[in-house]
Amino acid sequence: MLKNLNLDDFGIYEGISETIVTTNRGWTSNAAPMGIIRKKDKLFIRLFKDSTTYDNVLSEKVLVANITWDPLVFVNSTFTDLEDSDFQTINFNCRSLVTLKKAQCWVAFECTNTKLTSEALVAELIPIRGHVNKCLIRAPNRAFFGVIEACIHATRYQLTGEDKYLKLIKAYGDIVDKCGGDNEKEAMRLLYGFL
Amino acid sequence: MLKNLNLDDFGIYEGISETIVTTNRGWTSNAAPMGIIRKKDKLFIRLFKDSTTYDNVLSEKVLVANITWDPLVFVNSTFTDLEDSDFQTINFNCRSLVTLKKAQCWVAFECTNTKLTSEALVAELIPIRGHVNKCLIRAPNRAFFGVIEACIHATRYQLTGEDKYLKLIKAYGDIVDKCGGDNEKEAMRLLYGFL
Repeated sequence: MLKNLNLDDFGIYEGISETIVTTNRGWTSNAAPMGIIRKKDKLFIRLFKDSTTYDNVLSEKVLVANITWDPLVFVNSTFTDLEDSDFQTINFNCRSLVTLKKAQCWVAFECTNTKLTSEALVAELIPIRGHVNKCLIRAPNRAFFGVIEACIHATRYQLTGEDKYLKLIKAYGDIVDKCGGDNEKEAMRLLYGFL
Repeated sequence: MLKNLNLDDFGIYEGISETIVTTNRGWTSNAAPMGIIRKKDKLFIRLFKDSTTYDNVLSEKVLVANITWDPLVFVNSTFTDLEDSDFQTINFNCRSLVTLKKAQCWVAFECTNTKLTSEALVAELIPIRGHVNKCLIRAPNRAFFGVIEACIHATRYQLTGEDKYLKLIKAYGDIVDKCGGDNEKEAMRLLYGFL
């Protein structure tokens, strides 16, 4: 780990941080919600096959974890491609990395010790660069978490078609209705639209 | 609303913010997890009868909403009394208010237009003072919200004794096991201990 890059300063604590991972191959950028696993000072990511993030990480061996609390970005990057204008290109050691323009902060990682299984890859992540755009205080809001859980169950629903996931999505939609602001409610409307 | 106190700066956005509300009567301080409801620039709180917060707000017409992401504080203030050393006393217009020492920030509110029903009170909140201790970046972590949801269902379980709440607590406990750091896991252990 970089001695002068403290993951705490970028909001990546022990456990699984829900981030938007941006990757690119040449000029084609991709964003997808992904968990960054931290165990003490070791970091890992697990990526399932048949995803653009999987292909890009296998090819480029680098990724950027963006920290954001925008529920619309979580829904859009789960179901569709973000706009080109959502990305920002930075140069690092003669190669281009992409980040999310509106992220609170981001950390770029080199992916090493990659282990492949029949379904997924697990890579260790070595931080190579980080940047804080802004620090915003936020009170916990159950609706934001409701959107995240609904995205997870929506992905499972799309994979399996099982009705139980629709019920869970509806239950989290109720939390969003009760506790959310305009952004969380709009995110749920978008999610229902994608299903 | 105070013209120079922007609620966004204290992390209180549209919808329901999960805060720790501190109140006091004389030297006796109390803390309890409570939602602060924001609709545009109006703020409200709903307090159920038979709680210390209800009694203190009815008597003193003032409360402090503390913003924190410490899951242990949410569990402890749901089930028991915090330590005296967790509180800090501040003076405002010749009266004493209490805040949480370790909160990221807090906003003190005057409670007006109080409406009483047979079960609860609803008061409008007018911000009178706010203070930021520190701004910390945090990636979303499902385990933190798992603890919050488990606290909510644990309260319902204690009121009704219905088994369905135990099942929900267990399901959120699984999310905490999977995604949490030491703090979230310790908070769930505490919660199970209180039940």
